[in-house]
Amino acid sequence: MSDETRSITVLGIAGSLRRGSYNAAALRAAAELAPAGMRIETFDRLRDIPPYDEDVKQQGFPPAVADLRARIKAADALLIVTPEYNYSVPGVLKNAIDWASRPPEQPFDGKPVAIMGASPGALGTARAQYHLRQMFVFLNALPLNRPEVMIAAANQRFDAEGRLTDEKTREFIAALLSALKAWTERLRR
Amino acid sequence: MSDETRSITVLGIAGSLRRGSYNAAALRAAAELAPAGMRIETFDRLRDIPPYDEDVKQQGFPPAVADLRARIKAADALLIVTPEYNYSVPGVLKNAIDWASRPPEQPFDGKPVAIMGASPGALGTARAQYHLRQMFVFLNALPLNRPEVMIAAANQRFDAEGRLTDEKTREFIAALLSALKAWTERLRR
Amino acid sequence: MSDETRSITVLGIAGSLRRGSYNAAALRAAAELAPAGMRIETFDRLRDIPPYDEDVKQQGFPPAVADLRARIKAADALLIVTPEYNYSVPGVLKNAIDWASRPPEQPFDGKPVAIMGASPGALGTARAQYHLRQMFVFLNALPLNRPEVMIAAANQRFDAEGRLTDEKTREFIAALLSALKAWTERLRR
Amino acid sequence: MSDETRSITVLGIAGSLRRGSYNAAALRAAAELAPAGMRIETFDRLRDIPPYDEDVKQQGFPPAVADLRARIKAADALLIVTPEYNYSVPGVLKNAIDWASRPPEQPFDGKPVAIMGASPGALGTARAQYHLRQMFVFLNALPLNRPEVMIAAANQRFDAEGRLTDEKTREFIAALLSALKAWTERLRR
Repeated sequence: MSDETRSITVLGIAGSLRRGSYNAAALRAAAELAPAGMRIETFDRLRDIPPYDEDVKQQGFPPAVADLRARIKAADALLIVTPEYNYSVPGVLKNAIDWASRPPEQPFDGKPVAIMGASPGALGTARAQYHLRQMFVFLNALPLNRPEVMIAAANQRFDAEGRLTDEKTREFIAALLSALKAWTERLRR
Repeated sequence: MSDETRSITVLGIAGSLRRGSYNAAALRAAAELAPAGMRIETFDRLRDIPPYDEDVKQQGFPPAVADLRARIKAADALLIVTPEYNYSVPGVLKNAIDWASRPPEQPFDGKPVAIMGASPGALGTARAQYHLRQMFVFLNALPLNRPEVMIAAANQRFDAEGRLTDEKTREFIAALLSALKAWTERLRR
Repeated sequence: MSDETRSITVLGIAGSLRRGSYNAAALRAAAELAPAGMRIETFDRLRDIPPYDEDVKQQGFPPAVADLRARIKAADALLIVTPEYNYSVPGVLKNAIDWASRPPEQPFDGKPVAIMGASPGALGTARAQYHLRQMFVFLNALPLNRPEVMIAAANQRFDAEGRLTDEKTREFIAALLSALKAWTERLRR
Repeated sequence: MSDETRSITVLGIAGSLRRGSYNAAALRAAAELAPAGMRIETFDRLRDIPPYDEDVKQQGFPPAVADLRARIKAADALLIVTPEYNYSVPGVLKNAIDWASRPPEQPFDGKPVAIMGASPGALGTARAQYHLRQMFVFLNALPLNRPEVMIAAANQRFDAEGRLTDEKTREFIAALLSALKAWTERLRR
C-alpha cells in the first residue's frame, strides 16, 4: 500500500460566520500545521445551511446540507473548531450538525473527531467543547480526549490578517493533529 | 393596585419549526393552562431569524431579531419549550438566543424563566434542558428549579390535531406555570 | 429593625482536606473580605463525614452530618469553595452534599448560594462549578449566576502561609460576597 | 492464540454501599450476562476507601486504594455501575475515582469503559452518566458511546432478592457487554 492511499483526509468545520473569525483563522492555521500524511479540507458553506425544519427535510436535503453530509461521510476524520456563545456551541454550528445528522445515513457514526476552539475569554471555549462532546455520544462519533485545545485570550494570539502568531498555540494545534492521525489510524485498523 | 397591573406577561418560545411540533403544541397547551393573572404570548418568527453573523449584526439587528429582543425585554418572564436534537438544544433555538443576547442591551438579564420540553424518547429533553440552564448562567436569567417538565413519549400524549390530551402532563404544565408566577412575583417585589 | 437582626450568616464549605488547600485558603480570605452585615462561618468537619450509606442513614445521621445539616439550615446563605478533581466536584465534597441532602428535611431547599473555587490549572474549577450548579437544580438551592469566581493558576496567588496575596482575586471575592448579600436580601424579602 | 488468552477481564464497580442496592444488583446481573470470552470481576471494597486527602496520599496509597488501582490496571476494561445522587455521581464513587487516578500511574488511561446505572426515577441515572463521561475525558478513558443503559423505575425491575427480573433490561445489559467486548478488542489490536 502506498503512502498516498494511507493519507488521511480531515474535514475541518469552523463554527463562526464572521469574516475575521478567530476560529476560521485557527482552522486555516491547522491546515498549515497538518502532519505528513494528513490533508485538511475546509467546509465553507455554513452560511448556506437553512434553519433545520423537519417538514423541509421531507422534501430532501438542501444542497449545502447534502454537500456537508457527503463530505463528512467521505472524510476519514473531522476537526471541529468551535466558538463559544452563551456558554455553549453557536446555534449556527449546532444547526449544521442537526441537519447533517438526520437519517437515513448518519455520517458522524464512528467518525474520529478532534475538537478545538478560540475565544477572547479565559476559558477558550471549554464550555462549548463539553456540550459538543455530549452531542458526539448521541452521534456515536469518536472524539479524541486529548490534547484539549482551548485558545483563550484569542485576540492576543492572531495578527490583524488573521494569522496565528502565537507559537505555543501552533504547537498545541500540531499536537492535536498528530494525535488525531494516530487515533484515526488506530480505529481503522 | 389593580389586578390588571399585577398581571404577568410571559413570552413563550418553542424551539422547533416543524408544523406538527410537539413543542409548539405543548406551548399552545400552556397558553390555555395559564393561571389567573398570567397571559402567555407566543413568539412565532423563529423561522425569520437569520444565521447569527457578527458582521451582519454591525449593521443592526434584523427585523425578527429586533422583535424578539423587544418582546423578551417587555415580558415579565419567559417560557422556553425546547426539543432535544443530538442531546442538546436545537441549533435553531440556540441561534435565536445568540442573536437576542447581543449587546448593547441583553434582554435575558434578570428575567425569570420556566423550561419545559417534549420528545418521543424516554428522557423528555432532559439533556437539552441542562444545556439551556448553563446558557442562563451566562445570560443571568433566573430559571425555576422545579418542577422540571420533561414530556417523554410525546407521541402518546398529543392527539392528531396537536392537542395535549394527557391529563398528567397538563397538570405538570399547570404546576410549572403557577410556580413561574410565584417566582416572578417574588423576584419583582 | 436593627442592623444586628439584618445581618446575614453565611456557612462556608471548602471541599478539600489537604492542610495547604488553596480552597480552604480562599475561604479564609473570604471570611476577611465579607462586607458589613455579613458574617462567614466555616464548616470544618468534612473529614468526619463517613461514606454515604443508606443503611447507616436508617440508624440516624452521624454526628458530623447532623452538625452540617443543622448549620446549613441555620445559615442565611452558603458559600461553596470547590476544588476540581477529574473535571468535577471532589468526591469528599459530593459525599457531604449527599449526606446533608437526605430526607426528611432537605436543608439546601431555597438557600441562596455563592460558588467559587481555586485550582493550579487554567480553568479555575469551571467544570466542577457547572456540575455543582446541576446538583443545585435538584436541591432547589438558588445559586448566584455571577460573578463566577474561578481562581486559575492558584499556586501564584497565595503565599507560603496560605494567604491570598493576589489583589485582583481579592476584589473578585469581595464582589461575589456583595452580590451574595444582595441576592440573599432580595430573596428573603 | 487460544480462546483462553483472548478472554477479556472486566472490572465492575457499583457506586453504592447500600446492601440492597439496585446498582450492585445490576452488576451481579451483568456478571451472569457476560458473553463468551468475557469475565466480570467485582470490586467490593468501596467502603474501605477513605476520604481523599492529598496529605494522606503523600504517605502512600491506603490498602483498598492500592488494590483498586492494581485491579483497574490489570483489567482489560471497566464496567461502571452508577447510582445518581443529587443529579450527579455519588460522592462515594467519585472519591474512589479521585484516589484511583492519582499519579504516578493513572490506571484509567486508555482503558475501555462501559457505563450503566439504575435509579427509581424516570431518567435512570442519565445525569450521573454524563458527569462520569466528562471525568473520563480528563482520565483519558475510552467509554463506549452506546448502548446507554439507563435503568429507570428500578424498583419494578428487581425482585426482593435483588435479582434483575426484567427481561428487556437483561437484554440491554447483554448488548452493552457485547459492545464492550467488541470495543475492547478493536482498541487492543
